[in-house]
Amino acid sequence: MADIVKEITKRDVDFATWYTDVCKKSDLVDYSSVKGSMIIRPYGYAIWEKMQSILDQEFKKTGHQNLQMPMFIPESLLNVEKNHVAGFAPEVAWVTHGGGELLEERMCVRPTSEVLFCDHFKKIIKSYRDLPLLYNQWCTIVRWEKTTRPFLRSREILWQEGHTMHETKEEAIAETKRMLKIYEDFQRNYLALPVIVGKKTEKEKFAGAEATYTIEAMMYNGYALQNGTSHYFGNGFAKAFGIEFLNRNQKLEYPYQTSWGVTTRMIGALIMTHSDDHGLVLPPKIAPILVNLIPIGKDEKVIEKINEIAKLLEDKGITTNIDNSEKSPGFKFAESEVKGYPLRIELGSRDYENNTVTIVRRDTLEKIMVTFEDIMSKVSELLDDIQANLYNRALERRNSMLYEAVSLDEFKYLAKEKSGFIKINWCGDTSCEEHIKEETGLKSRCITEEETATGKCPICGKKALYKTYFGRQY
Amino acid sequence: MADIVKEITKRDVDFATWYTDVCKKSDLVDYSSVKGSMIIRPYGYAIWEKMQSILDQEFKKTGHQNLQMPMFIPESLLNVEKNHVAGFAPEVAWVTHGGGELLEERMCVRPTSEVLFCDHFKKIIKSYRDLPLLYNQWCTIVRWEKTTRPFLRSREILWQEGHTMHETKEEAIAETKRMLKIYEDFQRNYLALPVIVGKKTEKEKFAGAEATYTIEAMMYNGYALQNGTSHYFGNGFAKAFGIEFLNRNQKLEYPYQTSWGVTTRMIGALIMTHSDDHGLVLPPKIAPILVNLIPIGKDEKVIEKINEIAKLLEDKGITTNIDNSEKSPGFKFAESEVKGYPLRIELGSRDYENNTVTIVRRDTLEKIMVTFEDIMSKVSELLDDIQANLYNRALERRNSMLYEAVSLDEFKYLAKEKSGFIKINWCGDTSCEEHIKEETGLKSRCITEEETATGKCPICGKKALYKTYFGRQY
Repeated sequence: MADIVKEITKRDVDFATWYTDVCKKSDLVDYSSVKGSMIIRPYGYAIWEKMQSILDQEFKKTGHQNLQMPMFIPESLLNVEKNHVAGFAPEVAWVTHGGGELLEERMCVRPTSEVLFCDHFKKIIKSYRDLPLLYNQWCTIVRWEKTTRPFLRSREILWQEGHTMHETKEEAIAETKRMLKIYEDFQRNYLALPVIVGKKTEKEKFAGAEATYTIEAMMYNGYALQNGTSHYFGNGFAKAFGIEFLNRNQKLEYPYQTSWGVTTRMIGALIMTHSDDHGLVLPPKIAPILVNLIPIGKDEKVIEKINEIAKLLEDKGITTNIDNSEKSPGFKFAESEVKGYPLRIELGSRDYENNTVTIVRRDTLEKIMVTFEDIMSKVSELLDDIQANLYNRALERRNSMLYEAVSLDEFKYLAKEKSGFIKINWCGDTSCEEHIKEETGLKSRCITEEETATGKCPICGKKALYKTYFGRQY
Repeated sequence: MADIVKEITKRDVDFATWYTDVCKKSDLVDYSSVKGSMIIRPYGYAIWEKMQSILDQEFKKTGHQNLQMPMFIPESLLNVEKNHVAGFAPEVAWVTHGGGELLEERMCVRPTSEVLFCDHFKKIIKSYRDLPLLYNQWCTIVRWEKTTRPFLRSREILWQEGHTMHETKEEAIAETKRMLKIYEDFQRNYLALPVIVGKKTEKEKFAGAEATYTIEAMMYNGYALQNGTSHYFGNGFAKAFGIEFLNRNQKLEYPYQTSWGVTTRMIGALIMTHSDDHGLVLPPKIAPILVNLIPIGKDEKVIEKINEIAKLLEDKGITTNIDNSEKSPGFKFAESEVKGYPLRIELGSRDYENNTVTIVRRDTLEKIMVTFEDIMSKVSELLDDIQANLYNRALERRNSMLYEAVSLDEFKYLAKEKSGFIKINWCGDTSCEEHIKEETGLKSRCITEEETATGKCPICGKKALYKTYFGRQY
């Protein structure tokens, strides 16, 4: 095994160090002199660009328009909605000086942009004809975290934030769920993540929201990662900001609002779900480069053939990389695995004489001998197969780590002995939710809407209203 | 004339107010509660997305990779290169508090990212095999301007900044000029701007650069707009940051650096070059919507035909908008002009019976009757013609405002009586450049590399080395 792979800590030995090793060795990120901020290197940024491009198309197909709001929020504007400011003020960064002078009013770098959008909505919404207003922005936000981890928790976060305004409550709730579904489909179909979808509890919902819906992904170690949220605001912000529209009956009314977002954290979820001791593993539908071609030796015929194969693949829209460096074949193979290219094709002089190449799939490391003429069809087939296999493998693992507890004792036992999510009947009272957290350290992840609860809350003995997942989280 | 157009100040009456009227009335921007920052509304942002998409393809074709650096710069890092910090420190915004606490070291929001890139380059550049390193990032920067104007001068600027490192001086200079050429071609071919290209004087070059090349666009009123720059840094930053690589002779050497950028200011240049008293005028190659279709009346056959034409156009990749609102035809026509859609198609019941539509081109407001079957070919032809006409019109106007002065008196006369750029022989001394500025208020725009100077500097009488353009600027 080449040094580059030896440098990666074993996943089962130290999961946290394994994760940062994979992030760094595969050239996704680097640390910088700016504490708490990371550099997203070209290979990592290419994954984000693919995510952006797919999601942006979905947003536009559903009628959303991109725009760009200011990055600063004056303190008085942040203060307008009381629940919202209480949630965010403790973790913002404040700009106090500009152009060599103390500012009259300090401004924070946006931790999210609800108040900026509301300030704009107040000016442009007059009538029901102006609704729905379906906006989105791709930008960077800042939340002053104490401890950070690449992609998962960072002071600067690249994300998109959708902000919409609607005539009716029903339409706004439908929008909240529609965007959650777009996130869910994207994460299942492209990222191969078997996510669990549900509603946050009152305690865990977004500051200022009436309801928060969430996508919860389970990492290899059983921890939960909140991997996208969609919020229904009712008209709380509209009232606080005085946003009113003339409805179809010529009466003034407050519109109903949503917001929803996903971040570069999704890259962290990809790594913590699919990658292994050899490095990164990427689902083909999100990998910037699908096939890494490695010529063995310096035989000109081999190099020529490698170029020819690469050209044929590129012409079919299959992205490639040719490793023409002077490194040893063993090093190139290891590096190909660290980088998580879904397939690598090896070709030496002997293979050339036999009209064959070796294809190695990254997910299973299986080697497949293929004749020249079968390369194209085999590559397509394998890419589809890897995409499906990664999803199924993750689903199986996730299912093996889903538990259900019928009593607090059983919950405590599972929380202590097992990794994963624990489902439990719950009455809906925050005190019972907090009791579980105090006893076990586990927080509620989401209320599943697929199942209705029967029986009692095992904490207080009252009627159970919900089936709720609990778990440890990033 | 509908009210919406009456609200636009006449261009020849008050150019500055005309400009902000056009920006606002055409829904490109809105002001916000954040002083000095603007909201780029969906229509304005769609223009920026088109610019990004075209340029990003050009950058990638020439081997550049996108990445994302932190948005903050610790004060000590900004201080590393002395000329650079002197240029930028006075106009930055400082973050002094984060997460409720005073920071140990304050950080500015990046005004540009040379120092962040250098800090990273120091870690990743070891050998000539690591070069060239061709990076780019799309992001927002902050410069604390006192007076602001939509797109032209704002505290927050959306831009791209390329940063590259090279083995040799020659290669770095070639890169500086290659990227300038990409900007020039883009602005000529897509934005229809007849830009003037050249080198900045020592006095006007970028803080820390050895040479700055610039794209100077001339606005309708004769003012100059610096619409893109490309800098050659030599190895000054590399020395300041201790970036060294092992060259092909196994010796340690400092690499050679470039950076280059364009901003949303290009949208301002579009407006100030092509637009008129009716509102925005956009070159078809950068317009988000090419054809605005306006049904006159509520005849169902008309509506159906409009939808059919729109579908045919969209299928050919020609973007459309259908104005089905309840506004009057006159209002719709005026709004179509304010928004600068290159073509509008009007169709009423009578036209329908005659199998004809009226096409109105935005650049000349000329009306053209076309039979149904000729719509597609006529639209394509007109779009090409508008693109060419806007460029030629701007070129002609620009040429009519280029002057050459052979004496300081003539220069002073032209500066006082004429709008535009004045070319003059110049010895290259900063004192002569400053003398011109003190006497006339005009700053040097660029040294043209197309023409060599003969004769004397009219200020000091020494041998002239350069032909240099001077002008008033935004």
